[in-house]
Amino acid sequence: MREVFHQSLEDVQSRLVEIAELVTVAIDKATRAFESSDVALAEEVIEADDIIDEKAIALDELAIEILARQQPVARDLRIVVSALRISASLERMGDIAEHIAQLTRMRFPERAIPKGLKSTFTKMGQLDVEIAHTLTELLRTEDHALADKIRNADDGLDELHASVFEKVLSDSWKGEASATVDATLASRYLERFGDHAVSVTKKVIYLSTGDWTTATDAIDIVVSGG
Amino acid sequence: MREVFHQSLEDVQSRLVEIAELVTVAIDKATRAFESSDVALAEEVIEADDIIDEKAIALDELAIEILARQQPVARDLRIVVSALRISASLERMGDIAEHIAQLTRMRFPERAIPKGLKSTFTKMGQLDVEIAHTLTELLRTEDHALADKIRNADDGLDELHASVFEKVLSDSWKGEASATVDATLASRYLERFGDHAVSVTKKVIYLSTGDWTTATDAIDIVVSGG
Repeated sequence: MREVFHQSLEDVQSRLVEIAELVTVAIDKATRAFESSDVALAEEVIEADDIIDEKAIALDELAIEILARQQPVARDLRIVVSALRISASLERMGDIAEHIAQLTRMRFPERAIPKGLKSTFTKMGQLDVEIAHTLTELLRTEDHALADKIRNADDGLDELHASVFEKVLSDSWKGEASATVDATLASRYLERFGDHAVSVTKKVIYLSTGDWTTATDAIDIVVSGG
Repeated sequence: MREVFHQSLEDVQSRLVEIAELVTVAIDKATRAFESSDVALAEEVIEADDIIDEKAIALDELAIEILARQQPVARDLRIVVSALRISASLERMGDIAEHIAQLTRMRFPERAIPKGLKSTFTKMGQLDVEIAHTLTELLRTEDHALADKIRNADDGLDELHASVFEKVLSDSWKGEASATVDATLASRYLERFGDHAVSVTKKVIYLSTGDWTTATDAIDIVVSGG
């Protein structure tokens, strides 16, 4: 019975990693499509989001089945509950990739990326992809040092997000309203992607320690230390 | 033992209702603060969000404790798992109220609400408050007819959200970039609030039927029927 249970938990973990990999592909394609106004690539992201959603639902059903059949306690129970929470965050990260792809498609054949902000959005996109990669590794290895990397990348995103608003609200900004709308939405999406990753990071720490306070402290230490 | 268990489930439900009530107060104050540039009211919302977050975490801990001690199965298990999901959505609805309050504070003493969009934002705010009220009732009564009301209000929000972009992107729009940014963010927040409520609605239906497909179909019927 324990053997069966541990196989189930490994199944849960490998499915989380699989979803995180799909989210990584989605954000990579979405940010590249946004940069190059590649509407075909954007369509791929929009279509593939259904697969992420289905896999998240299937994982939730598996978690519920494990709870019902194997009635885990203590750390095992926390792993299953954390999996439910993590899958919800990953699913929302996939939604964000889809939103960025929709923005690209909406503006096509014009560029969604506003003039004067190209390098900022390129950096934000790279940070999101790096975060998604690191998060996948964190889920695979549970190596807490990776939380540091995610948090630092998220801090970088927050700074870039603030710089977008600084630019848009400055006197030198000559963009039309549509460019302002696009910059506002895209920057918000790219920044939120990082927030969700940090939220998953907390859940992974919680999973290891079983304590939200420790999870939050660990994050705070990372923040103040970095 | 069953008696204790059912008391626990009632406790879970009454706590969900309590959080939904706090979210209702938050969105009511946040949208009024946004309309009237009332920074003191906005501050209240920002401060009170910590209470919502704490209550959501406490509810999650209670749900985990119930899973560990009472090892529910079948419908009882689904109620507990749904509670975890619903609390996460309510917590995010509270965050949205806080974001709207932060927008108000950021622009103070200027008005965050852009000229020419006042009546649109007033309507969106009223729909959000109505949705929060109805959601609280749905959680209290599990009356599925209320799902219809929430879905209709959310459709109204979607239309108003689209009309904000139409206005901002029209030739007649003379707003500065800051007004465009505020309109974009505020409209997005107000519209997302409705999405989260619809998502809770699906979870409540799932809770009663134990089937995501039915939950999704029920929503679809509401959509195509209304």
